[in-house]
Amino acid sequence: MKKKLKIGLFGFGVVGQGLYHVLNETHGVKAEIARICVKNREKKRSLPAGIFTYEAADILNDPAIDVVVELIDDAKAAFQIVKSALEKGKHVVTANKKMLAENLSEIYELQQTHNRSVLYEGSVCGSIPILRNLEEYYDNDLITSIEGIFNGSTNYILTKVFEERKSYGDALKGAQELGFAESDPSLDVKGFDPKFKLTIAIAHTFGVFVKPEEIINIGIDKISAVDLKYARENNLTIKLVARAYKLDGKIVGWVAPQFIPADHMLANVRNEYNAVLVQGAFAEKQVFIGKGAGSYPTGSAVLSDISALTFDYRYEYKKFTQGDALPFSSDVLVDVVISFTHKDSILPADFESFKGGYQGHGLQYMTGSVSLVKLKELSQRNDVSVILAPELNLSSIQKVEEKELLSA
Amino acid sequence: MKKKLKIGLFGFGVVGQGLYHVLNETHGVKAEIARICVKNREKKRSLPAGIFTYEAADILNDPAIDVVVELIDDAKAAFQIVKSALEKGKHVVTANKKMLAENLSEIYELQQTHNRSVLYEGSVCGSIPILRNLEEYYDNDLITSIEGIFNGSTNYILTKVFEERKSYGDALKGAQELGFAESDPSLDVKGFDPKFKLTIAIAHTFGVFVKPEEIINIGIDKISAVDLKYARENNLTIKLVARAYKLDGKIVGWVAPQFIPADHMLANVRNEYNAVLVQGAFAEKQVFIGKGAGSYPTGSAVLSDISALTFDYRYEYKKFTQGDALPFSSDVLVDVVISFTHKDSILPADFESFKGGYQGHGLQYMTGSVSLVKLKELSQRNDVSVILAPELNLSSIQKVEEKELLSA
Repeated sequence: MKKKLKIGLFGFGVVGQGLYHVLNETHGVKAEIARICVKNREKKRSLPAGIFTYEAADILNDPAIDVVVELIDDAKAAFQIVKSALEKGKHVVTANKKMLAENLSEIYELQQTHNRSVLYEGSVCGSIPILRNLEEYYDNDLITSIEGIFNGSTNYILTKVFEERKSYGDALKGAQELGFAESDPSLDVKGFDPKFKLTIAIAHTFGVFVKPEEIINIGIDKISAVDLKYARENNLTIKLVARAYKLDGKIVGWVAPQFIPADHMLANVRNEYNAVLVQGAFAEKQVFIGKGAGSYPTGSAVLSDISALTFDYRYEYKKFTQGDALPFSSDVLVDVVISFTHKDSILPADFESFKGGYQGHGLQYMTGSVSLVKLKELSQRNDVSVILAPELNLSSIQKVEEKELLSA
Repeated sequence: MKKKLKIGLFGFGVVGQGLYHVLNETHGVKAEIARICVKNREKKRSLPAGIFTYEAADILNDPAIDVVVELIDDAKAAFQIVKSALEKGKHVVTANKKMLAENLSEIYELQQTHNRSVLYEGSVCGSIPILRNLEEYYDNDLITSIEGIFNGSTNYILTKVFEERKSYGDALKGAQELGFAESDPSLDVKGFDPKFKLTIAIAHTFGVFVKPEEIINIGIDKISAVDLKYARENNLTIKLVARAYKLDGKIVGWVAPQFIPADHMLANVRNEYNAVLVQGAFAEKQVFIGKGAGSYPTGSAVLSDISALTFDYRYEYKKFTQGDALPFSSDVLVDVVISFTHKDSILPADFESFKGGYQGHGLQYMTGSVSLVKLKELSQRNDVSVILAPELNLSSIQKVEEKELLSA
C-alpha cells in the first residue's frame, strides 16, 4: 500500500529545483520535501530559509525522514551521503552517474545489508525510463545488445555542427549556455559522462559490475573537417554512441563517435535528446528516445523513483543474481574510419585489417578494422580523429571509397 | 514474493506458440503452461496431445490454474473467457485489442469486483511496453498528448510503397505473407486495429473509457499517386498516425494518415515497427519504438505480463481513479491535404478555412482546415484521399504550394 514519504533533499541546483516544482504541480505522489541540505550559505534561494540546512546530519539523523534524495555534484561526498543514509535505514534516490558508476557493486551490497532501496533512474539518459524497463520489462529477455546516445550535451553539439554548420567551439558554448553541458565540459566531450551511464546500464542489462576505468571512451573533441565532409557526402551523420553487447562469451563495450546512416533510427535523435536501443531475443529491437538533460526531464525521472518507493519498489538486479553473467572485456576488433593531417601519423600497419584510404589536399583518411585498445591509443595522437564505421560494417564505406570524397 | 504460476492458455496461434517458446527459453519466470484450449480438433499440433483440450471448462474450472492467458481471435468469445476466468478467481493476460477496446470499462469493473488482475501489454503496439510505462513511469506526469504508429501491417505497406515504389496491392500481399496483417486486412488498412489500440491507450493516458465507435478512423487504402508525389517532392513520408491530446478541456483523438517530415523521429520508423510518442509536462517528449507484430515480440509482451503477475502486479488506472478526467470529443479542426480526381468532388466551401490548391493533369488537391467529422465524411467519397498536414501545421505546406508540384 502507498504511504506518505518524507524526503530529505541534498542539493538544490537545476535538478533539485525541477523536482521541487514537479512534485508541487502533480497530484498523487504521497511525498513531501521536508528538508533541503545545501552547501552555499550566501546563495539566494527561491524557498523560505526554514526548509534549508547546511548540516547533513540534520537530514541523516532525522528519524522522520524516510528517503534521501541526493542531487549534488561531488561524487565522493555523494557516496558518503548514500552510505550514511542506508546505514540510518533510509531509502535513497540519486541521479549521480559518476558516483553510481564508481561504486555500483558496493551500492548493491549496501542495499542487501541494510535492506533498503537505492533507485537511480535519473542517472541514465535523463527522462528515459531505461533502468525500470531493463529491470521489469526485459527481466526475462535474453538481451544481446544495448547502445545509444547517452549524452545530451554532445548530441546537441553534433546536431548544431551538422545542421547549422556551427563550429565545434560555438556549438559547445551554446550547449553550456543552455545548461546541457557538465560544469567540466571534458566529462561530456571526451565521453566520460556517457561512459558512467553505460557502466550503470551494463549492470542492469547483463548483470556485470564493471569499473568505469575498464571501459574505453573516445570523445568527439577531435572530429575533423574531413569527417564532416565524409559524413555529408555519404548521407551519414556522426553520433557519440555508447554500446555494449555479447560477443563470444563476453560482454564488450565502449563509448566512441560513430557514423550513422541518415535513415537509421538514431539519426533523427537531435539536440539534447538521448536514445537507447535494446536488442533482445524476444522483444527484438526496441528504441527509447527522450530528453537527456534539463531540470524537468531529470526531475521527472527522480520523481518516478520517489513514486516507486511509495510501493516499496527495489531493483532486483536479476541478471546479476541469476549468476550466469559474462565477463566484461575490451578485446574486440572494430571497423573504423581514421582521419589525420600528418602524412605518416597513421599507417596501414596500424590496422588489423586495412581496407583502403584516400589522400589529397593535405588531408587523408584510412579505413579498416583495429583492435579497440589500439584504437584508443591511436585516438590520442594529436592530429588523429577516429570514427567508427556505420553499424560496424564497412560494406557501405567500401562503396563510397570509389568516389573522390575530398574533391575541392 | 514470487510464486509459481500455473497457466491455462486459450488459443495456440502464432502468438501462443511464440509465448510457449519464449517461456521455455528464458529462466526466472516462475510460470508454466499447464493446459491449452484450442478449437480445431483436426489441426496438427507441435506439442503432445495431452496438453490440449477442446473444452474451456477444463481450464476455467480447474482450481490449480492461477492465470488464464487468452490469445484467440474472436473478440466476443474472448470476452466470455475473460469474464468467466475472473469470476472463477483467476488472473487474466490477454492481447485481444478489439475485445479490450470494446469492453474496457466493464473489464475495469470486473477487476475491482473480483479482486483479480487483467494485464494486456501485448494488445497495444506489440513489444513496446507502453501501458506499463504509462501506468508506472508517467503515473504522475501531466500528459498532454499520445500519438504514434500503432499498426505494423500498414506501416510495412507504406514503407514498401515509399521506399521500394511497390504498388499498394503488392505491398499488402507482402504484409499478409509475412503474417503482419490481420486475417481481415480492412481492420488494418482502414485503421480499425490502431483505433482499438488507441482506445486502450487513451484509458491509461487520460483516464477516459471511450468506445471505439466514438473515435474517427480514416485508413490508408485510398492514398493516391498525387499524395505520393506530393510527399516525395516535399521530403515528407506518409504514416498512419493514431493520436489523442488535450484540447480546451477535452480529449480529442483519431486515426488518420498524416504527412511526416523526413527528419521527424517517426519518419525512420519503418516496416512492421510501431512507435509511441508521449508528451508530458515533466518528461517532455518521449518516443518508444519497437516491433508491433510478430510472434516473439507479442509473446514477450505477454510473458512480461505473466512475470508481473508473479509480483501481484495490477494496473492502477490512476488517471481514471483520480476522477478529474476530461471528456472525449471529435469536435476539432484539423489541417489537411485532400486530393481527388473528379474536378468538383471537393470544393473550397468544404473547408472551414481554405488555404489553397493545385489543379492540372486531371489531378488536384486542396489544403486547409476541416472539422474532423466533416473530414471523415469527405474521406468516404469514392475518388477522395485525405492526409493530415505534417504536425497539424500548414506553414510548411503553404511554402511548397508556390512550387508546381505536379509538373509532368
